[in-house]
Amino acid sequence: MSQQGVTPRSKDYSKWYTDVVLKSELADYAPVRGCMIIKPYGYELWENVKSGLDTRFKATGHQNAYFPLFIPMSFLKKEAEHVEGFSPELAVVTIGGGEELEEPLVVRPTSETVIGHAFSQWIQSYRDLPLLINQWANVVRWEMRTRLFLRTTEFLWQEGHTAHETYEEAQEETLRMLDIYEDFAVNDAAIPVIKGRKSSQEKFAGADTSYTIEGMMGNKWALQMGTSHNLGQNFAKAFDIKYLDKNNEQQFCWTTSWGVSTRMVGAIIMAHGDDKGLRMPPRIAPIQVVLVPIFKTEEEKAKVMDAVARVADSLLAVRIRLHVDDREELTPGFKFNDWEMRGVPLRMEIGPKDVANGTVALARRDIPGKEDKQIVPQEGIIPTIMRVLNDIQHGMLRQARSFRDENLHEVKDYEEFKKVIDDGWALIWHCGTAECEKRIQEDTKASSRCFPLDLNDDKESKKAKCAVCGKPAEGKAYFGRAY
Amino acid sequence: MSQQGVTPRSKDYSKWYTDVVLKSELADYAPVRGCMIIKPYGYELWENVKSGLDTRFKATGHQNAYFPLFIPMSFLKKEAEHVEGFSPELAVVTIGGGEELEEPLVVRPTSETVIGHAFSQWIQSYRDLPLLINQWANVVRWEMRTRLFLRTTEFLWQEGHTAHETYEEAQEETLRMLDIYEDFAVNDAAIPVIKGRKSSQEKFAGADTSYTIEGMMGNKWALQMGTSHNLGQNFAKAFDIKYLDKNNEQQFCWTTSWGVSTRMVGAIIMAHGDDKGLRMPPRIAPIQVVLVPIFKTEEEKAKVMDAVARVADSLLAVRIRLHVDDREELTPGFKFNDWEMRGVPLRMEIGPKDVANGTVALARRDIPGKEDKQIVPQEGIIPTIMRVLNDIQHGMLRQARSFRDENLHEVKDYEEFKKVIDDGWALIWHCGTAECEKRIQEDTKASSRCFPLDLNDDKESKKAKCAVCGKPAEGKAYFGRAY
Repeated sequence: MSQQGVTPRSKDYSKWYTDVVLKSELADYAPVRGCMIIKPYGYELWENVKSGLDTRFKATGHQNAYFPLFIPMSFLKKEAEHVEGFSPELAVVTIGGGEELEEPLVVRPTSETVIGHAFSQWIQSYRDLPLLINQWANVVRWEMRTRLFLRTTEFLWQEGHTAHETYEEAQEETLRMLDIYEDFAVNDAAIPVIKGRKSSQEKFAGADTSYTIEGMMGNKWALQMGTSHNLGQNFAKAFDIKYLDKNNEQQFCWTTSWGVSTRMVGAIIMAHGDDKGLRMPPRIAPIQVVLVPIFKTEEEKAKVMDAVARVADSLLAVRIRLHVDDREELTPGFKFNDWEMRGVPLRMEIGPKDVANGTVALARRDIPGKEDKQIVPQEGIIPTIMRVLNDIQHGMLRQARSFRDENLHEVKDYEEFKKVIDDGWALIWHCGTAECEKRIQEDTKASSRCFPLDLNDDKESKKAKCAVCGKPAEGKAYFGRAY
Repeated sequence: MSQQGVTPRSKDYSKWYTDVVLKSELADYAPVRGCMIIKPYGYELWENVKSGLDTRFKATGHQNAYFPLFIPMSFLKKEAEHVEGFSPELAVVTIGGGEELEEPLVVRPTSETVIGHAFSQWIQSYRDLPLLINQWANVVRWEMRTRLFLRTTEFLWQEGHTAHETYEEAQEETLRMLDIYEDFAVNDAAIPVIKGRKSSQEKFAGADTSYTIEGMMGNKWALQMGTSHNLGQNFAKAFDIKYLDKNNEQQFCWTTSWGVSTRMVGAIIMAHGDDKGLRMPPRIAPIQVVLVPIFKTEEEKAKVMDAVARVADSLLAVRIRLHVDDREELTPGFKFNDWEMRGVPLRMEIGPKDVANGTVALARRDIPGKEDKQIVPQEGIIPTIMRVLNDIQHGMLRQARSFRDENLHEVKDYEEFKKVIDDGWALIWHCGTAECEKRIQEDTKASSRCFPLDLNDDKESKKAKCAVCGKPAEGKAYFGRAY
């Protein structure tokens, strides 16, 4: 039983977020700085995210494996840009079995190095390629400012690592996985995303090119929800990942990596939540339907609970994720608020009248107030529920998409940029240099999100100039405040 | 493509084990001492183990959650026996984000302490009980002598942690989970196990009582395949896990913990493998059926591959885990040996004759040589395959059970014990003291496995004397060589 009510989202977005996470029991603070405990409701949401992604990975020929948590410090140093990028964030084991270690071990912040080492031993010839591996694991990055799900010292994620014969194949894989992330975000998490290329400033340490899916949160800030990297031959050269080609010549492989983390849970909270709390998209909701029995007398109770059991059994049999809230010490009103706060997409009520009429009452979480309370017959309840859940799923996506589209602004110059940037994302011609990004960040607190793939036409870019510095533009980039 | 052939099991069991793990590509050594890389074939086996256990946990009301990897050193020290037991095995993080930490962080060797701390905050009243939590995670124990899957510095496992109102409920949970482990071992992994109580010497550091399932491996050694602990109020008192009872009085909870790890994979390898390599029980086999097309001419190939595609599609549609081995550079004979070594339960061949006759050839991995090669019609292939896989599953369990039963010896005195102990396990009246166990270990290298639950009758024990020291017996215990 949780305390009721969260700080309204409209009042204080940041406090609302923390309230929702804690009160809906998605997660809790851990006794270790910057770490979190993922509670059952949050973990079940993560399991549904995992399952949606894992199915897509396997359908595209990837296999799961598991690589060690500890990485020798010397491995990290083999790729210069990589070690520079990750050094400030490392947790280091210096004592093992009571003795000081000769070589300190890094707790993996990501696994390109240790997997690169393994690939160099596994790959002999072109017959071993492509090698398509994914790992579900915990990683550690020593973060200074942390926030539940969005940025924690330890987090859970998947990291894909693949090796290919050619640049083209690696590039194709990099974009294929970006598409898979988009497909999951849109169709399962009901979050429309913008796919794009990261600026050199924002790319992964050690990648040639990084791609991202960026989602717009309820406060119009951006959240990077997944990234896919073409690593070129950088790690192949650092770790000697070579193959014998068809002409019997040694070649370096081309590798990729791509990842989605428990941040995705933060995205789901922030893209869909409202003043009352969470709103879970049905496809990934831990509980899709909550059934609240309503009665006053013992006689009513017997009849109602009988109908509840019958309806519940029929829905559970077709794997609808249903929860019966039969807690006796709480009023129906308390329960309604509680499940609303926890974002269960659909509430079903069965009371004495429903028993008499062979009906149930349905209330949708995505439609506020009593507007959409419907009475539907118990007969044919399965197709009814499936249709309503499907409607909610699509409705949430539509809602998120129109909110985002309303807050995307194409601007013609830096003056206009500065006017709109507190109210959404701005699309602007951008040179892609670190200097310009820094200046924009200092002026407006916004960072470059990506060069969107579908809005960048090479021919057009060649003529354009950066709206800030006037130098030749690399393309059109979205900028926005970001987590 | 792997090198063919493993050291025969009958020749050198230990070398056979390592050969099988490496050549069948279940796992590989990691560049970090004592760690392993779980390769896709091994990880898929682990995923099937996970899924079999996870389904059973959820069906008995447990929920998954995730707790942090790092534990403050001070937490470990709160339960005296616990810290004493784990201290020599700890990996310790002393540097985070480039700075020396004020309090070193232990990489979790198990999570009773950090979960105990969380429980103390989550549990208020009897309404919050029982609290039934499970976690799938990696843990680290600094081991001196390691062996792939059986004992590695980092391993994967699940650890269940529950809190209850009474001793009786905690004890019931402890034994329920032991039963679930047995059910998985017997029905999914096809390994008969002996359920029993651990001696005080062998129990978990911090538990009141530890229970175990012990399996007999192919060399007659024992392997502890899962443990379930009644922790009494030890951790509740150390971490202040209290609840308000129905009379409004503060009470300490009673807690349990229970775990199964990637060791289970080692058990599956060792309980079922033979001279040729692995033998996978169909219920958990990553590949249940391998289909090898056989042809010589291009004309034959076209016809054969057409039939192969048809049969494969129909089996995949009913979720039979089938792999078509269409590698062109290898002979059928090579492929047969390869899949035999990898333990695929059933091989299917389709050649030109089969195409003409509308048949397929089946060869069972559990029956040696060509004895059981059968020709069966393509029509009705789904029920045929399901029946054969089921037969193999049950046949493997029967085989493992008779092997085990042949090597269990009930002995009347220590002389007889010493005679039989190199050839299986001995059941003997045992006082349960560390002194006696030590003596037996020094004399015979055997350790106490457990006091089997179904062979210990309290009345009988009260009269009996330890077969080694003559003091009052605690019960009948199995002893054996063990991993």
